[in-house]
Amino acid sequence: RPALLVHLLAGAGQDALGALRQTMAYLRYHCPQIPVILDVKRGDIGPTADMYALEAFEHYEADALTVNPYMGGDTLQPFLRYADKGVVVLCRTSNPGSGDFQNLQVDGGKRLFELVAEKAAREWNGIGNVSLVVGATYPEELARVRQIVGDMPLLVPGVGAQGGDVETVLRNGRTAEGAGLVINASRSILYAGRGTDFAEAAGRAAKELRDEINRYR
Amino acid sequence: RPALLVHLLAGAGQDALGALRQTMAYLRYHCPQIPVILDVKRGDIGPTADMYALEAFEHYEADALTVNPYMGGDTLQPFLRYADKGVVVLCRTSNPGSGDFQNLQVDGGKRLFELVAEKAAREWNGIGNVSLVVGATYPEELARVRQIVGDMPLLVPGVGAQGGDVETVLRNGRTAEGAGLVINASRSILYAGRGTDFAEAAGRAAKELRDEINRYR
Repeated sequence: RPALLVHLLAGAGQDALGALRQTMAYLRYHCPQIPVILDVKRGDIGPTADMYALEAFEHYEADALTVNPYMGGDTLQPFLRYADKGVVVLCRTSNPGSGDFQNLQVDGGKRLFELVAEKAAREWNGIGNVSLVVGATYPEELARVRQIVGDMPLLVPGVGAQGGDVETVLRNGRTAEGAGLVINASRSILYAGRGTDFAEAAGRAAKELRDEINRYR
Repeated sequence: RPALLVHLLAGAGQDALGALRQTMAYLRYHCPQIPVILDVKRGDIGPTADMYALEAFEHYEADALTVNPYMGGDTLQPFLRYADKGVVVLCRTSNPGSGDFQNLQVDGGKRLFELVAEKAAREWNGIGNVSLVVGATYPEELARVRQIVGDMPLLVPGVGAQGGDVETVLRNGRTAEGAGLVINASRSILYAGRGTDFAEAAGRAAKELRDEINRYR
């Protein structure tokens, strides 16, 4: 089933959050079967993280959110304790400079993103609600993360505007059952058409991507 | 001069952002000399970071914001290009689990937070608008970061409710001129009084902390 990834806010402050709240309400009412992931990349100390969890899961009623692991495992706990919500941890992100820190060799010769994947699979996923972000733009790392985490679902941005290849993502990232991937495209769908037909153009682009994904499962 | 650290949002969504906007407007009008740091810990790919920079620096007119380095140097550029604004990078955070990743040994035997400090000083601070977060709760790391970054200003949370010691922070973190520190206390000031005298109690707690800091400069 399709998932919708929503950027929490960008630039316009309150007005944007009003639009977000209306969008979430529309989705809840008209498409209750679509899981919504808030792509807010949270990461803060305990008492603040408690409130961010409340915001995402209760105020906006999102089904999952993205979090940044740099501050350590204790900062993820406030999100992880929501058993019926998903926590998507940044692991190997899709942007050009993501190797600056994520690909550094750390204790024992592992790379930092591999250690994040190990902790996600072995320490943070006690109730099975954890997922990881791995960019389509780094297929070798995607294969490595799949190896580490077994059947854990992965959120894969970077096809579309960022240039990742769908066939390679499926080959390197799918589970043995041909599943386990949430593949995200934002700009290539949202801005598929710029005229009055923008909605139809976005719909067509989304269906084309879906069909391409299914071709390689 | 005093700085004010504002948490962008916590829990209540739009209403909280309305309150934030009002607070910022109040400060701009009544206390224009107080620099305001938005503690939003942003970290996202370029086009999204562009909009987060716009939000913090133009919509809210903040003087600085906090950012998370995990995604790499390219994700900090949209903030760094604002020459008259400050960019405060998470380095060694004050929370109990911050060592999970930040204290890992990386290439060449350095710890990850030391590498972040080096990059901040040598690569990201081209126009002199970079600062680092180093928790008062980790005095050894604070001394090490001061050694790496010279006179760069450091934002030090963790005195007050988190238990960091002011004298140790000054000894390990100040520059040769007895400056270079923005020492933050949140809960111990905000909740100093719980009755109708909460404002006076907060004022007293803030002045006590200021005097304690100045004692050890």
